[in-house]
Amino acid sequence: MKEKSVKTKGKFIVLEGGEGSGKSSCIQYLKKKLAGRDDVVFTREPGGTPFGLKLRELLLHNREKRSGLAELMVFCADRADHCESFIYPSLKKGKIVICDRFDYSTYAYQIFGRQEKAHENDFKTINRVAKNPGRAREIKPDLVVFLDVDPKIGLTRVKNRPDDDTVFDAEELSFHQRVREGYRKQIGSEWIVIDAGKRKEDVQEEVWRAAQKIIKN
Amino acid sequence: MKEKSVKTKGKFIVLEGGEGSGKSSCIQYLKKKLAGRDDVVFTREPGGTPFGLKLRELLLHNREKRSGLAELMVFCADRADHCESFIYPSLKKGKIVICDRFDYSTYAYQIFGRQEKAHENDFKTINRVAKNPGRAREIKPDLVVFLDVDPKIGLTRVKNRPDDDTVFDAEELSFHQRVREGYRKQIGSEWIVIDAGKRKEDVQEEVWRAAQKIIKN
Repeated sequence: MKEKSVKTKGKFIVLEGGEGSGKSSCIQYLKKKLAGRDDVVFTREPGGTPFGLKLRELLLHNREKRSGLAELMVFCADRADHCESFIYPSLKKGKIVICDRFDYSTYAYQIFGRQEKAHENDFKTINRVAKNPGRAREIKPDLVVFLDVDPKIGLTRVKNRPDDDTVFDAEELSFHQRVREGYRKQIGSEWIVIDAGKRKEDVQEEVWRAAQKIIKN
Repeated sequence: MKEKSVKTKGKFIVLEGGEGSGKSSCIQYLKKKLAGRDDVVFTREPGGTPFGLKLRELLLHNREKRSGLAELMVFCADRADHCESFIYPSLKKGKIVICDRFDYSTYAYQIFGRQEKAHENDFKTINRVAKNPGRAREIKPDLVVFLDVDPKIGLTRVKNRPDDDTVFDAEELSFHQRVREGYRKQIGSEWIVIDAGKRKEDVQEEVWRAAQKIIKN
């Protein structure tokens, strides 16, 4: 049972949501609320490590045609580096790790959005390897906060966000509707689903309340 | 049996070898010998596609620390893109595809060189997915030409090659000895092993003779 205690020393919180769900503003709100807490660390996928940052640039901003399978594998490579070099060591030290996107995004965007369901089982296999650095124990979130919003509303918000357009922002409405479907298919007992069509301030407050249940004092 | 005929329409030849084995000069020699043959195409890994070229740059020249598993997955992502976008379509058209490195390199460098034997089975699983675009049929070479050279000799040659230093060139002798061991462990019935410690001209001629058996007239 040694492995179990290693994992459960820290806590792992993941924020998920499609484009324009207000995820970034909620992360900023949590950072403000948790400022000065040295037991809390913030990170993100893709790009939670120096090598991953290079992969992020490619994944989000490079416009070269790429196969859906290759894209999926690069997301998993980023996750492998991130789990081994940052998430797992942080959890071992007892930190509360708050992560902007995790593997739920890969499933929603790469399998559902990109319509690669033929590779669903391949993804699960590769992803399981990526989340298990050193073959110690698969990393699993204690809480997933899902900001659920109609892509019609989300994409309108994104249009007013001038300086951060990614290859995924450029996809059609139907892509983002499939992404939402992909997220919803994964909803489990550790999830809290928040209606992110509401006022920004209300969504931020709900996220903060959800996170507090895990973070405590 | 339809799938089988699709694969066997073309022919797939792979050249493998450690640093300073003379692989590049042999590829140049083959290109000269086969100039004008529009049924022959040359390619390489990593970097056989536009997206793969970006991955190649990262894999070979970026000095950020990366986990062995992440590196391995990016090599497989490159292969997935390459197999789907180039190798498989070329074989389907009946082309003879000559590839500078394939998955034998990943096994030799990433599993043996980097000492990631704990991920040997994970590699085999991920690699099998990468080589099977569209889940039609796993791509397998008809011929593997392995240029085998003592790394002590190979590395001396590389030192005289000023403009192409990669992160792997910078590794110690013991790394390259493990790579050689990794290659040798894979020798199979479709392999031709050439003593690449010999004179360059003799090695080139031997590679050409080996390739001719597959290429014919």
